[in-house]
Amino acid sequence: MTEIKIRAGEKRDVSQALDLIKELAEYEKAPNEVSNTIEMMEKDGFGDHPIYGLIIAEIEGKIIGVSIHYFRYSTWKGRKLYLEDLVVTEAARGKGAGAKLFEATLQFAKENKCNGVSWQVLDWNEPAINFYKKYNAKFDGEWLNGSITF
Amino acid sequence: MTEIKIRAGEKRDVSQALDLIKELAEYEKAPNEVSNTIEMMEKDGFGDHPIYGLIIAEIEGKIIGVSIHYFRYSTWKGRKLYLEDLVVTEAARGKGAGAKLFEATLQFAKENKCNGVSWQVLDWNEPAINFYKKYNAKFDGEWLNGSITF
Repeated sequence: MTEIKIRAGEKRDVSQALDLIKELAEYEKAPNEVSNTIEMMEKDGFGDHPIYGLIIAEIEGKIIGVSIHYFRYSTWKGRKLYLEDLVVTEAARGKGAGAKLFEATLQFAKENKCNGVSWQVLDWNEPAINFYKKYNAKFDGEWLNGSITF
Repeated sequence: MTEIKIRAGEKRDVSQALDLIKELAEYEKAPNEVSNTIEMMEKDGFGDHPIYGLIIAEIEGKIIGVSIHYFRYSTWKGRKLYLEDLVVTEAARGKGAGAKLFEATLQFAKENKCNGVSWQVLDWNEPAINFYKKYNAKFDGEWLNGSITF
């Protein structure tokens, strides 16, 4: 069986991580929404003040999945980790890479003194919802996302 | 007319900010969900690695409102500001403090090279939704909030 390796992301991974982000945006029916670039991601994740982190899944040296996360602050609960994206490339699904990435993300949150992990999932994305339910995740659909773009 | 002063928050404001957070949790029908403390908020906002920021509204030296925010990372769009809470104490509403706090938050985001501000609002909270619509905010109810608490 092919071995899946999980490791912390580095600057050299940004280009392939961005490809996976675009693959997820396609799946989420918003392929044109990705205006992020390799240069921005290198600066924001691996510059003087990193504002996000990466965990990488690879098989035989090829990146097949990524967890992209950052710290958030719940005024109710304190420090939490927010999982912005969890993606495994389509050709590599069904091998357990998603579970390994998610479990590594939970572990990272614990090591960094977070009291929990949160994320968002599209309400029609049943495979994702069922995946997270295996971890006894709670879901709440009572909130609207508001935004203003400059 | 009483003047509303807007200023950056400091460590000494944490206690009153937490009172406002609790007032909002009460309004959001979740008063028992607030386990955050003054000590945690002092450390997380004004320690060596601050993970959130405060903007304060006051009238005659008394704090009547607060914006609590942190940087987030949209994998689609890059660096954004997330507005975790915007609260004006009930007795001081209708004087424009909310608008001043929100506009100061937008300004802070622009100064810090964010490309937008996002937040969440309960789907039944019409006064809040109407408030943000005056700024041409977009709302999206297609997402579920998922979470795991340690």
